[in-house]
Amino acid sequence: MRIVITGGAGFLGRRLADRLLARGVLRGVDGVDAAIEQITLVDVVAPAPSPDSRIVPVVGDIADASLLARVVGPGTGSVFHLAAIVSGMAEADFELGMRINLDATRLLLDVCRQTGARPRVVFASSVAVYGGDLPEPVLDGTALNPQTSYGAQKAMAELLVADYTRKGFIDGRAVRLPTITVRPGKPNAAASSFASGIIREPLNGLDAICPVEPDARLWVLSPSTAIEGLITAHDMAADAFGFSRSVNLPGLSVSVGEMVAALERVAGPTVASRVRWERDPRIARMVAGWPGACDASRARAMGFPGDDTFDQIIRDYIAEHVP
Amino acid sequence: MRIVITGGAGFLGRRLADRLLARGVLRGVDGVDAAIEQITLVDVVAPAPSPDSRIVPVVGDIADASLLARVVGPGTGSVFHLAAIVSGMAEADFELGMRINLDATRLLLDVCRQTGARPRVVFASSVAVYGGDLPEPVLDGTALNPQTSYGAQKAMAELLVADYTRKGFIDGRAVRLPTITVRPGKPNAAASSFASGIIREPLNGLDAICPVEPDARLWVLSPSTAIEGLITAHDMAADAFGFSRSVNLPGLSVSVGEMVAALERVAGPTVASRVRWERDPRIARMVAGWPGACDASRARAMGFPGDDTFDQIIRDYIAEHVP
Repeated sequence: MRIVITGGAGFLGRRLADRLLARGVLRGVDGVDAAIEQITLVDVVAPAPSPDSRIVPVVGDIADASLLARVVGPGTGSVFHLAAIVSGMAEADFELGMRINLDATRLLLDVCRQTGARPRVVFASSVAVYGGDLPEPVLDGTALNPQTSYGAQKAMAELLVADYTRKGFIDGRAVRLPTITVRPGKPNAAASSFASGIIREPLNGLDAICPVEPDARLWVLSPSTAIEGLITAHDMAADAFGFSRSVNLPGLSVSVGEMVAALERVAGPTVASRVRWERDPRIARMVAGWPGACDASRARAMGFPGDDTFDQIIRDYIAEHVP
Repeated sequence: MRIVITGGAGFLGRRLADRLLARGVLRGVDGVDAAIEQITLVDVVAPAPSPDSRIVPVVGDIADASLLARVVGPGTGSVFHLAAIVSGMAEADFELGMRINLDATRLLLDVCRQTGARPRVVFASSVAVYGGDLPEPVLDGTALNPQTSYGAQKAMAELLVADYTRKGFIDGRAVRLPTITVRPGKPNAAASSFASGIIREPLNGLDAICPVEPDARLWVLSPSTAIEGLITAHDMAADAFGFSRSVNLPGLSVSVGEMVAALERVAGPTVASRVRWERDPRIARMVAGWPGACDASRARAMGFPGDDTFDQIIRDYIAEHVP
């Protein structure tokens, strides 16, 4: 069993690789678990070195068809496609977002198709595919109406995954990730970056700016549950998806004010007081367009895991990342 | 006011051009009606010659960026993008469908963007963007879940139109056309071709094969009302669209059996008896995936016209096309 992870040097990609290495097996194209022999991490930057010989780093541009053809072959049973230009950057640089979020996805699916092996492809989509006049909660059958270029590109990529699957070119599965929080490390250009920053920075003794109002509602998921969701999507039997290969993972619906209140419960008022409220209209507008809650009953019925409480997400982050 | 119609040699394209010539004016990018000076008809085949000097035929491949750059310029106020690979052909030739239905649409929008003039772009989408487990009727807020490559490509193109519009690159409007019937001329490779054939051929004294069951339900629109819908979409104020630039035109929901019964009422039992029922599983499967009825209340509230009865659609066809 050989696996390719795009965006493999990123936070989720590297964490997924570690989880797969620890797991040791993954469902093969024949539906039977097989030992993982190799995990190729493709990214524009080199991943942190791994002592595990099963990890093969490949540095390059995933919009380059020749690179993709080099890393995906007839022996590739599974592809986790996580590489993306994040929301804030895709909004600022339209061409770059189209090239990576749409064109590279299509190239990747074409390369998978050319292997003739019909690999399982797990695509990391996003709740940013939703927008406009949204029902509360958003349903799996709610129309995709993205109000960002990132969301539009993810929605188009989902349509590609679905049609390539229907045609029998690949065996695709698209999971719509909620906002992943709490991420370690530094802020990034995602409009949702603050959703980690307002927890992470105060725990590190730093002030954090919250660019949205306390009542702004987010649909969130912890990193570890997101990773389990990607693996669950991969291993699931094809017919469990029915008419749609896209699924909303079970997130938690929390307001930003509730997130900071949870931080105060878990880490105390001094830590929570490091959050400063400074509204940024550009970010507030993008976030306001995303769903604050989704109906996850389909995902739960399919067996996707969720988080229990945001307090627990913070405690897990502290246990793993705060000395 | 200079207009470009892609697919301009086709049935709808040519008919739209004639209607625009007769009308003489069209809403400009400034929101004011302006006299039509030129209509460029772009198509892979030459359109029937026109005595009207405002018609400029251009024969070429709309997936060719240089051709598009030649026909769309800063003086282009409006583009009607009707060119497409029809459903049956897009299913048989995946690459061709992607190249024309997706790539050429994107090239066209890019060329429109490059003019800097933010032209009005009316995109002919299709109810084939819907599929899977559909509510009856399908709502404007129902998720796009195409079960054909044609539908997937139209859905992706709608997302492009919406995002290019949101970014201010164009002023786009996508109308989801019901099955257009009764079309004159010959059968084509659309899976819905029979929906015209079962009326047209019997009226011409020929037998027609119906490849679906009598209870198969179609969402249909007459050619002339479809043309009015395209023009209505073009002339509508931008803010009338709200959060979505895609709209389901008001069709009629009729079963194929009801269509043949209407033919018998209008043209008599001898004519209607020329319909032969021979199920074609490939076509029946594609048609079964399309909505049989849509909720057109949004389109009607916006002022889009509909047809009264299928009997009237047949009578109009006879008046125009049957000697």
